[in-house]
Amino acid sequence: MTTPVTIPVSDAPDQPARTPELEALYQGFESELLVPLWTEIGDLMPPEPRSKAQAHVWQWKNLYALAEQAGDLVPVGRGGERRAIALANPGLGGRPFATPTLWAAIQYLNPGEDAPVHRHTQHAFRFVVEGEGVWTVVNGDPVAMRRGDFLPQAGWNWHGHHNITDRPMAWIDGLDIPFQYATDATFFQFGPDEVETREAPERSRSERLWAHPGLRPLTRIAPTGVGTPLLAYRWEHTDRALTDQLELEAEGHPVTLEPGHAAIRYTDPRDGSDVLPTIRAEFHRLAPGTRTAPAREVGSSVHQVFDGIAEITVGARTWQVARGDLFVVPSWQPFTAATEGGADFFRFSDTPVFERLGLDRDIRFTQQED
Amino acid sequence: MTTPVTIPVSDAPDQPARTPELEALYQGFESELLVPLWTEIGDLMPPEPRSKAQAHVWQWKNLYALAEQAGDLVPVGRGGERRAIALANPGLGGRPFATPTLWAAIQYLNPGEDAPVHRHTQHAFRFVVEGEGVWTVVNGDPVAMRRGDFLPQAGWNWHGHHNITDRPMAWIDGLDIPFQYATDATFFQFGPDEVETREAPERSRSERLWAHPGLRPLTRIAPTGVGTPLLAYRWEHTDRALTDQLELEAEGHPVTLEPGHAAIRYTDPRDGSDVLPTIRAEFHRLAPGTRTAPAREVGSSVHQVFDGIAEITVGARTWQVARGDLFVVPSWQPFTAATEGGADFFRFSDTPVFERLGLDRDIRFTQQED
Amino acid sequence: MTTPVTIPVSDAPDQPARTPELEALYQGFESELLVPLWTEIGDLMPPEPRSKAQAHVWQWKNLYALAEQAGDLVPVGRGGERRAIALANPGLGGRPFATPTLWAAIQYLNPGEDAPVHRHTQHAFRFVVEGEGVWTVVNGDPVAMRRGDFLPQAGWNWHGHHNITDRPMAWIDGLDIPFQYATDATFFQFGPDEVETREAPERSRSERLWAHPGLRPLTRIAPTGVGTPLLAYRWEHTDRALTDQLELEAEGHPVTLEPGHAAIRYTDPRDGSDVLPTIRAEFHRLAPGTRTAPAREVGSSVHQVFDGIAEITVGARTWQVARGDLFVVPSWQPFTAATEGGADFFRFSDTPVFERLGLDRDIRFTQQED
Amino acid sequence: MTTPVTIPVSDAPDQPARTPELEALYQGFESELLVPLWTEIGDLMPPEPRSKAQAHVWQWKNLYALAEQAGDLVPVGRGGERRAIALANPGLGGRPFATPTLWAAIQYLNPGEDAPVHRHTQHAFRFVVEGEGVWTVVNGDPVAMRRGDFLPQAGWNWHGHHNITDRPMAWIDGLDIPFQYATDATFFQFGPDEVETREAPERSRSERLWAHPGLRPLTRIAPTGVGTPLLAYRWEHTDRALTDQLELEAEGHPVTLEPGHAAIRYTDPRDGSDVLPTIRAEFHRLAPGTRTAPAREVGSSVHQVFDGIAEITVGARTWQVARGDLFVVPSWQPFTAATEGGADFFRFSDTPVFERLGLDRDIRFTQQED
Repeated sequence: MTTPVTIPVSDAPDQPARTPELEALYQGFESELLVPLWTEIGDLMPPEPRSKAQAHVWQWKNLYALAEQAGDLVPVGRGGERRAIALANPGLGGRPFATPTLWAAIQYLNPGEDAPVHRHTQHAFRFVVEGEGVWTVVNGDPVAMRRGDFLPQAGWNWHGHHNITDRPMAWIDGLDIPFQYATDATFFQFGPDEVETREAPERSRSERLWAHPGLRPLTRIAPTGVGTPLLAYRWEHTDRALTDQLELEAEGHPVTLEPGHAAIRYTDPRDGSDVLPTIRAEFHRLAPGTRTAPAREVGSSVHQVFDGIAEITVGARTWQVARGDLFVVPSWQPFTAATEGGADFFRFSDTPVFERLGLDRDIRFTQQED
Repeated sequence: MTTPVTIPVSDAPDQPARTPELEALYQGFESELLVPLWTEIGDLMPPEPRSKAQAHVWQWKNLYALAEQAGDLVPVGRGGERRAIALANPGLGGRPFATPTLWAAIQYLNPGEDAPVHRHTQHAFRFVVEGEGVWTVVNGDPVAMRRGDFLPQAGWNWHGHHNITDRPMAWIDGLDIPFQYATDATFFQFGPDEVETREAPERSRSERLWAHPGLRPLTRIAPTGVGTPLLAYRWEHTDRALTDQLELEAEGHPVTLEPGHAAIRYTDPRDGSDVLPTIRAEFHRLAPGTRTAPAREVGSSVHQVFDGIAEITVGARTWQVARGDLFVVPSWQPFTAATEGGADFFRFSDTPVFERLGLDRDIRFTQQED
Repeated sequence: MTTPVTIPVSDAPDQPARTPELEALYQGFESELLVPLWTEIGDLMPPEPRSKAQAHVWQWKNLYALAEQAGDLVPVGRGGERRAIALANPGLGGRPFATPTLWAAIQYLNPGEDAPVHRHTQHAFRFVVEGEGVWTVVNGDPVAMRRGDFLPQAGWNWHGHHNITDRPMAWIDGLDIPFQYATDATFFQFGPDEVETREAPERSRSERLWAHPGLRPLTRIAPTGVGTPLLAYRWEHTDRALTDQLELEAEGHPVTLEPGHAAIRYTDPRDGSDVLPTIRAEFHRLAPGTRTAPAREVGSSVHQVFDGIAEITVGARTWQVARGDLFVVPSWQPFTAATEGGADFFRFSDTPVFERLGLDRDIRFTQQED
Repeated sequence: MTTPVTIPVSDAPDQPARTPELEALYQGFESELLVPLWTEIGDLMPPEPRSKAQAHVWQWKNLYALAEQAGDLVPVGRGGERRAIALANPGLGGRPFATPTLWAAIQYLNPGEDAPVHRHTQHAFRFVVEGEGVWTVVNGDPVAMRRGDFLPQAGWNWHGHHNITDRPMAWIDGLDIPFQYATDATFFQFGPDEVETREAPERSRSERLWAHPGLRPLTRIAPTGVGTPLLAYRWEHTDRALTDQLELEAEGHPVTLEPGHAAIRYTDPRDGSDVLPTIRAEFHRLAPGTRTAPAREVGSSVHQVFDGIAEITVGARTWQVARGDLFVVPSWQPFTAATEGGADFFRFSDTPVFERLGLDRDIRFTQQED
């Protein structure tokens, strides 16, 4: 579809007077498919990032209720591929984009259902805020999903899911769909309609090979492609790491990110890089009584409350959030979180895109007294 | 501006019947700012990249004539910043985007004019297809611009231009404006209204330090920031490199990219990487009688004919192009060029974005007999 | 000390006749401190590495008995620094060099003793084949040492040891002393005579921060300098990783290095690189009935039998080895191990030196039938 | 050859009394091929590098005269391979080692002679202080050698030389023979007795492909292996780069290494790294009246005066040096050069070994007033 070019009356400052000669010039631009910089510069080159995306909170209980209804009304199968319902940022034109680069959705699978096998260049992960009983099968390796687990799955790996229990299960999916859509990078292929295996082991093969701290297997099966070969980062390890950090801090060692604020990044055990080339994933724990220093970053992020209750402030707005709630922090908007009773957050962002391209910039303001 | 979410009647296959219950569910999605995957998957996850951008040719003589008129009608100065007129791809909604990630414009400067000093995170370059007389001043270093020169200028460096001659000059600007706009990464600052120096040396300081082949200066002035410290890649070097390649080929050494097709990439002399983190720039020379093998790549490119006449084919369409003409190759569309009398092309693309994120993929088909 | 130059009668082929004129020339060389290539080339440039080091086995029971006697006769303290007794390769001139690049020693600490604090550029580790009760204190962080633990400690970190039990303890030290000695890179500084802390925790602070699989702490305390920030790789993790590999192999997945041969490399959790810039450390497990394929590598290695009994072949010689025995494989000498009942090996080598300099080369021969 | 172990009477401080029991223990050590740390630590672990190598100057006129005589008396051919005469550092036991890691030799080729083709893992280069007429043929590519040219040739490339003129020619060879000898990394193979081609072009193919500043050829012939693909760094480029630096300094831009001291490093045009993995090569120019700030580095270097007269100080000794003279700076010895009339130096060092292994350290003292 070809769209015509129209030079609008610009609200940018210092525009030349719209004389008949200028109108003729602008018509010349339009007929040659040209647009001048001077009418567009205010929108295209602002002093600092001015995202069209908006800060917004989606409540888990509402999401879950709708997903449950979808579980009754919408079959999962070939074509639609997944019973996934995506956050649509109110600033992004009604499209299923949580931010300009990130997709976040709740996915729901009924007892006995299979999400059919496919692969795509989009990088993906799952994070489980509650429930269990689904195994995601990645290149034939069945990976259990349980509360607190983070399950990355880099682009172009075959994957499907199956629910072997008698209860439904829901989790969140994160992907870089908007980024790959905007940059025209996406490939997609169908695999079998059913997952390759009904096995349901406690630990996946990927964990048995790769989840030993600091130990690299000298395996004949060299993992190929981008993204981590470790398919599950278990809650027990995440929880222990954060507990250790806060205990070390209590013993007098300033090992946390800031006082009362412990955090880990999920990384590729082969090289310590982000688990996915376009997505950073982290888990943050705020001790009771903690208020984080305001921070702003180039790039956007999506957060899910894993536990506890907190007050979050993004730009000029403040919300109360609780277990399962999801919210978005657009590029360069200041973000703070505060909690009385303590709170745990899962967070993912598009930071690797900016770091790898030399476009990252971030500020953590000095913490102020309350 | 908040946009409402509306779940449209999807043309994707295998949609559930729009029963009253489903309509109610979809209304629930809309009120909670949610969009399901199954109605959108066809658009978001196609089998291979399906760019909204279209292949298109802009003729230099028309561009130049309009730029000349703009030189009469539109002043250049603070606010509008540059007398730059951008290619607006017919598939991209009338916006000044040559491709989803790249900006390409003709810029025009009258005798005695200054383009005022500013800096921005967007990475930029200039390429000169004809004319001379303008110096671009980058961080106080005046850089001459002449036919065939490639002048990169990485993000966040102060720069302005001045024309010391009594004749106007035009050139093309390439930037990653659409990419940084889509990902919310852009910062911008004004500098002085006039360039810092009226000096007009043959060689810039950057060339005197950095344009000696294979020789790194052990300078106290360590270049900081991303992007090449070399601000001018002169035509005499480019031309000689391509001439050498074709002569080596004629002597029996298969050093070219393919028979009759010589090419160089402009690189950062410090590490051989692309001159700009988000933009690759190359120069290609086709010997008389050459037809390139069809090639397709993830990512988009803009080409300018530097010399000669050629027939180009992008996807299903074919054009005749001559000196100065610009054209666009969208992501994953097959591209071929053929020439009877020989032709030179300047080319830039967003390939580094994909390479650095592990999303690159390219195919060069075996050359067929004509 | 200045040594005179003497051109010997060379046994290299094709030497010119020792005429009076040649003798005079050679005397000229000698007086000007010159040596011709043609008399030396046979020694300096052999067709393949021809190490002066020899394959050799040191028996643990003899080492331990002598270390015990040293515990009675030789105090540990400032000046001598450590009660460490090093392997002296029979080909290396009586110097305490296990190989041309590697140091290996047994260290012995009596109840209540302190090995005083110092630091040096030499990279070091400890490995424990039996016993416990000593804590090595690295930059103030006390690290327990127990059977099966691997404890790296990169150059220029302060460290001392203390034995809080009522029993002596011995372990092996590995360092790159010969390499840094040969290349003149070594710095050394004394610290306090006693370790900074008598604490004896189960887990070091380094483990609490860094030993969580795939999880990077977002700590304010950024580790500086080269080498891993993780100071202990515990036996329980190593053992489990190897057990997992052999079980996966038994389930039909070819994840081991070769059939029946599981192995892990100790790595820096920040980037997956070798724990020390000059030393690679690995642990290998051979299932009962396994014979490894002959392998040869550029660079030398030292091995210690951790458990089991094996027959090893290095070049043309074969030995029986058992728990605690140490042996050396010189550069490019073929190595094979075979075991009836199963065997565990700890191994360290200078491979990173060659890999980082592009000098590595290795061959694993196809396994032959017995 | 097996050498016996003998524990000498140590001159290290704090040695235990040599009681009969200790003597028995030491005999036990000797029979088990063991050496204690406490008798050796003073030699092995000094407070800072204490090289056995000595600073020394070799005068070019003496070297050249001896090489000339060798040209009469010693044929060049298969077996001896090269008429090369190496610097033997007076501290290194009479071996042909300029430093513990570096080889430096004068090589001499008579009219019409061929140095036969071979290859080896040792990295090498040639540098020409005077003369011309020899072409070195690297993998079939003939490379002219002329005054001021630097000609690297990384390990494992086939190479031979031929002299097509009616005059002899001499130059210096630099290699990492001592380093690869000490670490047992060397491989060597014979090629044809005569060079593959008698062509004698002005520019080698490698230059025609790779010596265009900042321009990377998109060639089908991807260079493999380590080390630079550019086989000649011509004097005209080196000279111009240094002239440019001193002129820029005179114009008020502090671009030099220190006042009056311009320098370039020869680099791989593909990635800006050192031309050889184990050897750094640089060219330094001191303007008239310049005295360099004292500097010390881990690692050793060899310097050749290319032009001018200078006074050099290494550690406590001072020499006058002139065109062609070679001298050695051992590890960590302070070095200064001063010149009244200006001087040019070629310099090579083993710095990449230390940088790649994280063992580098250097100090440039603040320049003092004279």
